[in-house]
Amino acid sequence: MLEDKKPSRTSLDQLGEFKLIQHLTASFSLKNPSSVLGVGDDAAVCDFEGGQTVVTTDMLIEGVHFDLSYVPLKHLGYKAVVVNLSDVYAMNARPTQITVSLAVSNRFSLEALEELYAGIQLACGHYKVDLVGGDTTSSTTGLILSVTALGQADSGHIVKRQGVQANDLLVVSGDLGGAYAGLQVLEREKAVFKVNPQSQPDLSPYSYSIERQLKPEARKDVFELLAEWKLVPHAMMDISDGLSSEVLHLCQINDLGCHVYEEKLPIDPEVVGICEEFQINSSTAVLNGGEDYELLMALPQSAYEQIKNHPWLTVIGHFTDKQKGAYLINGLDQAIALEAQGWQAFAKD
Amino acid sequence: MLEDKKPSRTSLDQLGEFKLIQHLTASFSLKNPSSVLGVGDDAAVCDFEGGQTVVTTDMLIEGVHFDLSYVPLKHLGYKAVVVNLSDVYAMNARPTQITVSLAVSNRFSLEALEELYAGIQLACGHYKVDLVGGDTTSSTTGLILSVTALGQADSGHIVKRQGVQANDLLVVSGDLGGAYAGLQVLEREKAVFKVNPQSQPDLSPYSYSIERQLKPEARKDVFELLAEWKLVPHAMMDISDGLSSEVLHLCQINDLGCHVYEEKLPIDPEVVGICEEFQINSSTAVLNGGEDYELLMALPQSAYEQIKNHPWLTVIGHFTDKQKGAYLINGLDQAIALEAQGWQAFAKD
Repeated sequence: MLEDKKPSRTSLDQLGEFKLIQHLTASFSLKNPSSVLGVGDDAAVCDFEGGQTVVTTDMLIEGVHFDLSYVPLKHLGYKAVVVNLSDVYAMNARPTQITVSLAVSNRFSLEALEELYAGIQLACGHYKVDLVGGDTTSSTTGLILSVTALGQADSGHIVKRQGVQANDLLVVSGDLGGAYAGLQVLEREKAVFKVNPQSQPDLSPYSYSIERQLKPEARKDVFELLAEWKLVPHAMMDISDGLSSEVLHLCQINDLGCHVYEEKLPIDPEVVGICEEFQINSSTAVLNGGEDYELLMALPQSAYEQIKNHPWLTVIGHFTDKQKGAYLINGLDQAIALEAQGWQAFAKD
Repeated sequence: MLEDKKPSRTSLDQLGEFKLIQHLTASFSLKNPSSVLGVGDDAAVCDFEGGQTVVTTDMLIEGVHFDLSYVPLKHLGYKAVVVNLSDVYAMNARPTQITVSLAVSNRFSLEALEELYAGIQLACGHYKVDLVGGDTTSSTTGLILSVTALGQADSGHIVKRQGVQANDLLVVSGDLGGAYAGLQVLEREKAVFKVNPQSQPDLSPYSYSIERQLKPEARKDVFELLAEWKLVPHAMMDISDGLSSEVLHLCQINDLGCHVYEEKLPIDPEVVGICEEFQINSSTAVLNGGEDYELLMALPQSAYEQIKNHPWLTVIGHFTDKQKGAYLINGLDQAIALEAQGWQAFAKD
């Protein structure tokens, strides 16, 4: 698909590793005062001037985390950055630098890597982070991306997964299940394309969900809203594996239980429609879908008035004593034990 | 080979990703005051208290960077850490934290990963760095390791590749060519083993070179010596790709030339012996061998008296004006243009 669109193809063998990095990063400039030295030396240099530094890293592997038959390389570059920045925001910190390590087999051309880096650069621009280093090497099979993100916070502002208090509100940003619904549509179109390569599907009714899957965003806006409100959550994490498993994780490490109300779960109408089309229970998509990169937080009851009408935040339940267990309460007031299915197990079904 | 030694085999499918990380990192503890929060949250937290932070990252891929038919997993874990720490020392900074991302196919057992992490832990202990994060995922083929290292330095002490002055001394730590010689021996033994699996080679005459290849060390001692002497090099880098290409790199970015004296090149007698056995020119092994992880630095002429008799450091030449070019001067006083062969190209010969 790539070669149809871009007939020009420069083999990576023609460039050395050093020239390849120079070429791919030539149009990246440093914008953060904390970025002292970028790509090109043994290491990058940052100066956080006394603040605390957060570090997070994620690896994306072709055939495991993405399928290049429907993921455009530019989107992949964007997403690889975003999933790391989401972890930085989940610490209530501001992302400032990334490093990108890349392994590619010789089936990739220079033009393909330029597409990938265009996506990386778009994310760097949107989130105001600097690419300061990385490594480029060959792989025997496929594409491997490893991104590390650094961020900065005042020491009192870091928010961990630990710190929840009983009766804290369980609050989620945005809506859930979209990335999973988008994946179902993309997988179906891939199967159709295999049978009939001439098919021209109209994907516009699924555009929100497909974008949630291919080009997710990290909740910079929510991080900034919390700062504006001077509201520091008791605990926070991002939702990458699915709401159920993340809620259970918070319960477990804080030695608490919780009640999550099914009718409060935030879901986009398009996602409800896709779930009907695919005969998936929409609550299951929300609870176990994963990859939405929304923020899940524990907030004191006192914050309720401030957040209850804000369009970005939804109170989906509250924490309880441990002995009350971790339950989903449905519309009939029945309590169903939450189960951690996670994305991997779920995807196998 | 691994399964012969360790008959117990626990499949990775039996553990989830979260439990796997917990299991592998359970015996790692945080030792640096700058390590505020380690493995287990969305991100790690560090506090460098106003110093500057250096960041470097390297990816190692099975079949490209290592061959598990003769690289023990414990050594691989050790080396993956060391190659990153070497980059931190090359900035004249003290390494403090690492993150380790790991992708493995299901041909690896839990016991195999325990071996790998035993090597990572050994390196963390030896170099006093903390493992603070990472990512563990599945791969479709083989083993992929991506390590990011952070380090700390006072702002005036960071040494870049740029900053060389004309007439600066070109100084190298340790000796060179050993890792390359060791690789030749290991490749030969692999070929012999294929023909005759019963062969029991005596590798003791090659032990220094094999250790240089399988278990290199980063020059923490040289970093500490420079600090003790209050000597800040004008420029520094580590030698991973081979002396020639690194010297040419320093010349190029500093717009200078250089003279390197062949008779000054530091080489271990065992390496000379291996070169004779394999009919390799020993200067070629030193100039193009790579993977020795020694430090290459530009020092002012005034430092000569201090370093000339130190066993860890060798003055191998000096920088010149650019128009004089970059040359190796041999024993007959002939000037031979330095060429960047690098490790990859060299390995193909």
